[in-house]
Amino acid sequence: MISVEEARERILADLRATPAEVVALADVWNRVTAADVVARLTQPPADVSAMDGYALRAEDGTRGARLTVIGAAPAGHPFAGSVGPGEIVRLFTGSVVPDGADAILLQEDATRDGDTVTVNEAVRQGRHIRRAGQDFARGDTVIPVGRRVTARDVGLAAAANHPWLSVHRRPRIAILATGDEIAMPGEPIPPGGIVSSNAHALAALVRAAAGLPTVLPVAQDTREAVAAVADAVAGMDLLVTTGGASVGDHDLIISGLETRGLAVDFWQIAMRPGKPLLFGWLGCKQSGVPVLGLPGNPVSAMVCAILFLLPALARLTGLPAAPPPTTTAVLGTAVAANDHRADHLRSTVTTDPAGRLIVTPFPVQDSAMLRRLALADALILRPPHAPALPEGADVPVIRLDTLGL
Amino acid sequence: MISVEEARERILADLRATPAEVVALADVWNRVTAADVVARLTQPPADVSAMDGYALRAEDGTRGARLTVIGAAPAGHPFAGSVGPGEIVRLFTGSVVPDGADAILLQEDATRDGDTVTVNEAVRQGRHIRRAGQDFARGDTVIPVGRRVTARDVGLAAAANHPWLSVHRRPRIAILATGDEIAMPGEPIPPGGIVSSNAHALAALVRAAAGLPTVLPVAQDTREAVAAVADAVAGMDLLVTTGGASVGDHDLIISGLETRGLAVDFWQIAMRPGKPLLFGWLGCKQSGVPVLGLPGNPVSAMVCAILFLLPALARLTGLPAAPPPTTTAVLGTAVAANDHRADHLRSTVTTDPAGRLIVTPFPVQDSAMLRRLALADALILRPPHAPALPEGADVPVIRLDTLGL
Repeated sequence: MISVEEARERILADLRATPAEVVALADVWNRVTAADVVARLTQPPADVSAMDGYALRAEDGTRGARLTVIGAAPAGHPFAGSVGPGEIVRLFTGSVVPDGADAILLQEDATRDGDTVTVNEAVRQGRHIRRAGQDFARGDTVIPVGRRVTARDVGLAAAANHPWLSVHRRPRIAILATGDEIAMPGEPIPPGGIVSSNAHALAALVRAAAGLPTVLPVAQDTREAVAAVADAVAGMDLLVTTGGASVGDHDLIISGLETRGLAVDFWQIAMRPGKPLLFGWLGCKQSGVPVLGLPGNPVSAMVCAILFLLPALARLTGLPAAPPPTTTAVLGTAVAANDHRADHLRSTVTTDPAGRLIVTPFPVQDSAMLRRLALADALILRPPHAPALPEGADVPVIRLDTLGL
Repeated sequence: MISVEEARERILADLRATPAEVVALADVWNRVTAADVVARLTQPPADVSAMDGYALRAEDGTRGARLTVIGAAPAGHPFAGSVGPGEIVRLFTGSVVPDGADAILLQEDATRDGDTVTVNEAVRQGRHIRRAGQDFARGDTVIPVGRRVTARDVGLAAAANHPWLSVHRRPRIAILATGDEIAMPGEPIPPGGIVSSNAHALAALVRAAAGLPTVLPVAQDTREAVAAVADAVAGMDLLVTTGGASVGDHDLIISGLETRGLAVDFWQIAMRPGKPLLFGWLGCKQSGVPVLGLPGNPVSAMVCAILFLLPALARLTGLPAAPPPTTTAVLGTAVAANDHRADHLRSTVTTDPAGRLIVTPFPVQDSAMLRRLALADALILRPPHAPALPEGADVPVIRLDTLGL
């Protein structure tokens, strides 16, 4: 048996980000940048007013001074002339400060009567003026390569005058459920059969991680049916299988795909739920399709997907290789010592009055209970041989609720 | 001026969830259920084995007993006969336990020689058998109405035999930027003009909140141009405007839309950044289009979108009316006392060795700095008249990084 960490490292070792593509700004949200986004202009492009008011020479802006309005500069309509002694120009937040002016008289500090403005509060040179380039200058990197684009980044890229960004293509993930006993939801269920739930749950997880899932038809339990899948996944970035990876008599994924050139690692992982995991490459590591075989048990499949598929998806989308994000929470109840297998306790999360995350495992952790998995807010990570812990101890958790998982 | 809370309550008061639609399971991820999802079958449908092994009568499973294999029950192929005294049936994880059997002999506790199996460890009645309905029974509500569907929920709905779910329609959000000075990214920029960044940032925020954004063409600063928008937004669930909501000379949203029946509330909100906010209805509250007018300043627009638009989107998608999600973090540096306006400090978030979230505001909080907003991981909420706080104090924050904002 190998550890969760070692298995994850071996999966991530040869995975590369998908190629770049050019995508319109309207569609880049949640993609990962494939190149630095460099500002194409300077923002603000010139000195601009931070307030509504008037532009003037600072030396003219003494209390009680009376100045002559020579024009206005609405935002978008700069004043073409220059501000001389005794002159003042009406402007607004964002208006370019006209030549000659070096101070702003706030609207509320001015009294206007026709073309004459009386100064009620003395101005200060430069105050309420935003300098050219205060936000960014042409040539600045405003968004670095390898960053997942947020809504704010989209605004920043727009402000830097980018209608398109270079981002990594969404990874195409083929999902294959196997088994004679599997029916799609709503289809007739064979005697003793069950409805396929893994394929759709995994497809949703792929979406949550910004991938493009393709659910393949269920493969029957024959070597030929599984082998045929190799043709269906040409051009995919990853094939995820579920079921058929146990040590039972029905293990056909390996023998089926080996006929098509699968170079396979088959691991027993020291973890619970979900022990057997398959990883390999259909074809070479440069141009082939990586294959990740998850357990058939739905709870095991989902937990293994969170531990192994989610980091693989992050890597394929362009992010660095890393484990799934964990946070620290406080145990709401004592937990027993762990054995030699890393455990992942399905748990609820609440917040105490001090704002701390309280995490409480369900008393029964049966891996056949899909409904309980769906009710869980987090997985508590219990490393191999972790000691018993009292209520109130800090534990690492993977939050499921905030990830849309 | 009114408070952030009062403004939010007034916005949410009359917003209703969008109507329901029926959506294939492959597309329901991140939607909100419009009806309870009720199990259409019982899971497991019969008593099934939790392990690979053999089914037998418990009284036969004593150590050293030798039993005759009368058949096999692969998953999906139940054994048709019954297990009598001295008989045993091969089965696997998920196989239906045959009639007559009430115990499981684990594979690793059995020695098989031809059709004879020797028992190496005594069995216990019922052990390693998952009872029919252990996960859920036909008629159980497995996913309640009003829940945002996770990947695990998708698996659960599939297992409960639902190929379709009734979910709320994705809200259609029209986004309008106004102003003579605004150019779209990549277009020629007029003298003194700036590139439209708000519309695209808001569209990305709408996507992050599972809405469908439509970015309208920029409206010039004329009453007629703004009025024409009323026709463009028929059938939309919300119109969001940006710019044109200040008290300056260029405020045309209200006068433009009032010619088309806008009943408007115009508020000064006691907050920073982003003071002026507009809310109203084009037409009646039963069949009209709500209008949310955000400030033109990009940082103010985004902060106001997080405080007001995000809860509105949640409500429209089918969730209960609520403020944006906050969490508690520890101040990485002291903060000064606040004035009468609620403040929203752009901040970075780190995790200390104990796993606590440490939140540190940027020293300069200029509302013109879009790049700094993009670098922020969180907003620290500072209520009106909040006292000065030392480093190490707990503060409420809205996390931006985890929301894709």
